[in-house]
Amino acid sequence: MSAIDELASELARLPGIGRKTALRLTYHLLKQPPAQCRRLAEALVGLTERVRTCEVCFNLTEAPRCRICADPRRDQNTICAVEEAADIGAIERAAEFRGVYHVLGGKISPLDGVGPGDLTIAALVDRVRQHDVTEVILATNPSMEGEATAIHLQRQLAPTGVRITRIARGLPVGGDLEYADGVTIAQALSARREMA
Amino acid sequence: MSAIDELASELARLPGIGRKTALRLTYHLLKQPPAQCRRLAEALVGLTERVRTCEVCFNLTEAPRCRICADPRRDQNTICAVEEAADIGAIERAAEFRGVYHVLGGKISPLDGVGPGDLTIAALVDRVRQHDVTEVILATNPSMEGEATAIHLQRQLAPTGVRITRIARGLPVGGDLEYADGVTIAQALSARREMA
Repeated sequence: MSAIDELASELARLPGIGRKTALRLTYHLLKQPPAQCRRLAEALVGLTERVRTCEVCFNLTEAPRCRICADPRRDQNTICAVEEAADIGAIERAAEFRGVYHVLGGKISPLDGVGPGDLTIAALVDRVRQHDVTEVILATNPSMEGEATAIHLQRQLAPTGVRITRIARGLPVGGDLEYADGVTIAQALSARREMA
Repeated sequence: MSAIDELASELARLPGIGRKTALRLTYHLLKQPPAQCRRLAEALVGLTERVRTCEVCFNLTEAPRCRICADPRRDQNTICAVEEAADIGAIERAAEFRGVYHVLGGKISPLDGVGPGDLTIAALVDRVRQHDVTEVILATNPSMEGEATAIHLQRQLAPTGVRITRIARGLPVGGDLEYADGVTIAQALSARREMA
């Protein structure tokens, strides 16, 4: 396969990038200085070599603990549970939450073969049991799977006696937390309610 | 800068990919096997190291001569002049043209600082003079700059006595040849007319 076809096929594996867009990007890169291609290649290799998950909250990090878990100004007793590490960035941009996070690693979705055992739920329950956690905010997406995951989490966490809240449905139903704007996220956080 | 931010910034330099899309692609890649990142990185490096321009027609190639110039079944006496190498793929998909190409390397565009001297026009005139070229088809885009480039080419080529034709305006005005469908391109080729 030619170098152009090889790059176009690899680019076309990315979500939202079809064959024509992949070719267009390849031809665009051919017109740029070779250094730009090399920087992109190095950034890709850096991603695989440097990024790992936080030993506490499973956020993405380059150190054993992520920036948020290592920050002494964050309230370690309030944990916000999210589906994906990308959701943390969205919540941080709202600048409303001062606690720490727990990345579940997905949502319960039987159709995709993802069960509770595939998520970091046991680690979250352990965290709550072993530290003075006063509240767990369930910030899974307001989708069907996100709600099911929240209900499952509530049942798993109930025996620990911790306060369990659900992020307010200020987000449009069926939406995706990762793409919500900061104001909506801030409202949803401040209007959180006790999990029934 | 973190590995995630580095990759997202590099991806955001690509056309049509904004900051949010770049981050989304980065998080997507983090969820894939590391081999996928490495393959993409290798394909990028391969592009810079393996691809060069054909010594005859300036098409992109990995050999001294491109696949089309090296093909003995192609009619070497009919040259189709295009703005970019990407346009060749579009014309080849129409499977109508059996001649060879000449990549101009852009279009005359004073606003972008591109003059006739920045294109491979002199090389095209040399090709016509030194070989038994019977026809040059001007297949620059049906845009203002593409038309201006065609008119300039016609003037430069007229002294050689070669037959000069312009691809028919079957393409929508202001459109881009690279994205045209094969049928439109085939019609435009077969309805080509003598350059006035």
